[in-house]
Amino acid sequence: MILVNGEYKDQIDLSDRGFQYGDGLFETIAVRNGKPVCFDRHLARLKAGCERLFIPFPDTELLTLEAHQLSLQAADSVLKIILTRGSGGRGYRQPDIINTTRALSLHPFPEYSLSYKEQGIVTRFCNTRLGINPALAGIKHLNRLEQVMARAEWSDSSIQEGIMLDVNDHVIEGTMTNLFYVKNNRLYTSSLDQAGIAGIIRGVIIQIVAETGYPVIEHKFTKEQLLSADELFLTNSIIGIWPVRQVDSTFYRKGLITEKVQTMLNEFYNRTIKDAF
Amino acid sequence: MILVNGEYKDQIDLSDRGFQYGDGLFETIAVRNGKPVCFDRHLARLKAGCERLFIPFPDTELLTLEAHQLSLQAADSVLKIILTRGSGGRGYRQPDIINTTRALSLHPFPEYSLSYKEQGIVTRFCNTRLGINPALAGIKHLNRLEQVMARAEWSDSSIQEGIMLDVNDHVIEGTMTNLFYVKNNRLYTSSLDQAGIAGIIRGVIIQIVAETGYPVIEHKFTKEQLLSADELFLTNSIIGIWPVRQVDSTFYRKGLITEKVQTMLNEFYNRTIKDAF
Repeated sequence: MILVNGEYKDQIDLSDRGFQYGDGLFETIAVRNGKPVCFDRHLARLKAGCERLFIPFPDTELLTLEAHQLSLQAADSVLKIILTRGSGGRGYRQPDIINTTRALSLHPFPEYSLSYKEQGIVTRFCNTRLGINPALAGIKHLNRLEQVMARAEWSDSSIQEGIMLDVNDHVIEGTMTNLFYVKNNRLYTSSLDQAGIAGIIRGVIIQIVAETGYPVIEHKFTKEQLLSADELFLTNSIIGIWPVRQVDSTFYRKGLITEKVQTMLNEFYNRTIKDAF
Repeated sequence: MILVNGEYKDQIDLSDRGFQYGDGLFETIAVRNGKPVCFDRHLARLKAGCERLFIPFPDTELLTLEAHQLSLQAADSVLKIILTRGSGGRGYRQPDIINTTRALSLHPFPEYSLSYKEQGIVTRFCNTRLGINPALAGIKHLNRLEQVMARAEWSDSSIQEGIMLDVNDHVIEGTMTNLFYVKNNRLYTSSLDQAGIAGIIRGVIIQIVAETGYPVIEHKFTKEQLLSADELFLTNSIIGIWPVRQVDSTFYRKGLITEKVQTMLNEFYNRTIKDAF
């Protein structure tokens, strides 16, 4: 089910700058019981992305209405929202009047083994590096060839995720997840000012963990630091938290802090879903 | 006039990975007298790009036929070819069977003042930097947000192009052009192994200049080196060569070497267009 600028259709103009240049942004939102989870946070990130790229944000009420309308079509699903700079302009130059394209689509909720959440997953380091670009870092824009290339590196279905470094050898994130690690009872995550996407669940975890008085430390770290971590887990809006039990040939135990954060995130979800629109 | 997978239509599937992730490549080809100019070179670059991104190349004869068919619709125009990884797959993960999308569209030839070619143009340095990524450098892929952001920096119509540096402070190219400069009678251009697009006309110039016995030197250079150049010019398939007479507040004369290369390129064009399919 797809809604493009308010119309039920599954096609977009070839001239759309999303197709021509990847000139836009997206959100991938979990839908539970027909309601988009953390919708306000996704909306806020989309707004921040539009501000960064100078794409006029569509009418918030209309977008919210469309998102909720579509979400009602399935109990549990994934809602994807794409906003682009629309059509027109001359080459890279944007049109004088921008008519933002909004495309909302509903997808089946992916079926992941429950063991991923409980026992953890197997991962690998990707050879494909993330480029450095402070101007685009953090936002969820449509230029995602690096992730596509990284994900194409393996087809072994026993490996659930790949971990990406940037060209300066800093560990940034998974191809579709953010990354946290525990060392000596402190929780760390990558700073995303040079590369990477600042995930919604990453933001939630940083917020709820800060309330314990031991805030998550955002910093730059290397592969070696990651491999010497005590615990490791990955996050995104669809999976929540997946502990990592293996990166290439290095093994991790699912530790107490990962379990604690999983519990805190579940409590957050329960509060949020109860309060949802 | 647009041809998508052999059909005259101006829409593509929203699920196309070109729209979802910028997962594809493109070419912008000058059409003269109803014939695409340097078509073999554009085809070769497109093939090299597909190999780099593991996108199956469509049937060469079919693509060539479609390109020539469409080009016949207008004497002078611009032919754009987009190839994408098609639809499907799970998130970033590509589908097991890739059906490459091919989208060909014909556009009016842009009307540029003749003075750009003869007296030269005014340019500026862009603040937006090009990210570093050897895996994607050189190819003309659809992830072009950096160029869009750079081009959005100015609207003053007396400035015709913006020059971009990479995040390591090397001068790489214009937003839509490659860059050459002359210093002490030698011709230099940026190496594009870390960032940038290896343009067709850039390749032609490197080839025809090599035949003089004084090959173009590809290297890394800074803003300061560029500002102390004797001559400076920009190239692409649509404009050919534009001498630069100004970068911000630095002025350049249109020198003898620029004129010589313009003459050589014109002779190349005349031979090529005469020999064209």
